[in-house]
Amino acid sequence: MQSPFDDTYFMKRALQEAEAAFEKGEIPIGAVIVIDNRIIARGHNLTETLTDVTAHAEMQAITAAANFLGGKYLQNCTLYVTLEPCQMCAGALYWSQISNIVYGARDTERGCINLETKLHPKTNIKGGVLADEASDLLKRFFIEKRNLN
Amino acid sequence: MQSPFDDTYFMKRALQEAEAAFEKGEIPIGAVIVIDNRIIARGHNLTETLTDVTAHAEMQAITAAANFLGGKYLQNCTLYVTLEPCQMCAGALYWSQISNIVYGARDTERGCINLETKLHPKTNIKGGVLADEASDLLKRFFIEKRNLN
Repeated sequence: MQSPFDDTYFMKRALQEAEAAFEKGEIPIGAVIVIDNRIIARGHNLTETLTDVTAHAEMQAITAAANFLGGKYLQNCTLYVTLEPCQMCAGALYWSQISNIVYGARDTERGCINLETKLHPKTNIKGGVLADEASDLLKRFFIEKRNLN
Repeated sequence: MQSPFDDTYFMKRALQEAEAAFEKGEIPIGAVIVIDNRIIARGHNLTETLTDVTAHAEMQAITAAANFLGGKYLQNCTLYVTLEPCQMCAGALYWSQISNIVYGARDTERGCINLETKLHPKTNIKGGVLADEASDLLKRFFIEKRNLN
């Protein structure tokens, strides 16, 4: 029997988080952390609301997941995030020793791949899951923002 | 007249934060953020206490400084930190657009210099201020920890 809990399912949940950020006027990026097909943490970008550059979706999800697990390492966990993580978030993921990172859209300018941020040897990374949806949401946000200014 | 508020003065304050971490059984790293010779934020490593890999001294200081200033950018601010920042913290400092980073000891393995984390073009970085004091504190911590286990 096929499990309904695949990468697309969890990325859609991350996209819901991104939409929640959008509604708050935040750059729409969302994340969930999953262990054994169960979402244990969620986060969306809150840098404007909290006036804090560290309040990226991934950072909040990492903190929440560790809190849920009662331990700071995220072994056997998968992060789903709508946009490729930046250096800060990839650096935090390094420390977390997370098993898998799945991102949606690429961020060729500020993402960890082109900037060659070091990931933990235990961490696998793959991208492109619902990339168009993630990217469209970001484009829509910046178009609306430009029209408001 | 010579100002008593020089790099050594502020690094000593960062070392006091590192000592506070030591007393809590945390890897002893401390930081302060300064604007116009005034300390506006402090932080020390709390990764064990908070069970959170993101709870580095610098991350807490960045959040506290932005909270104090009421804005997320740390222009005209200087971060003093006892150990060279890691990728995560350097990535956060990139987003903060902080003007200056002054660190104590080098971290050749996990520090941002050898790992080539990108800093903001507005940011200057220099190191070696009270490096021996910062390094001695770390060594003492790991010796004590080894003897306890």
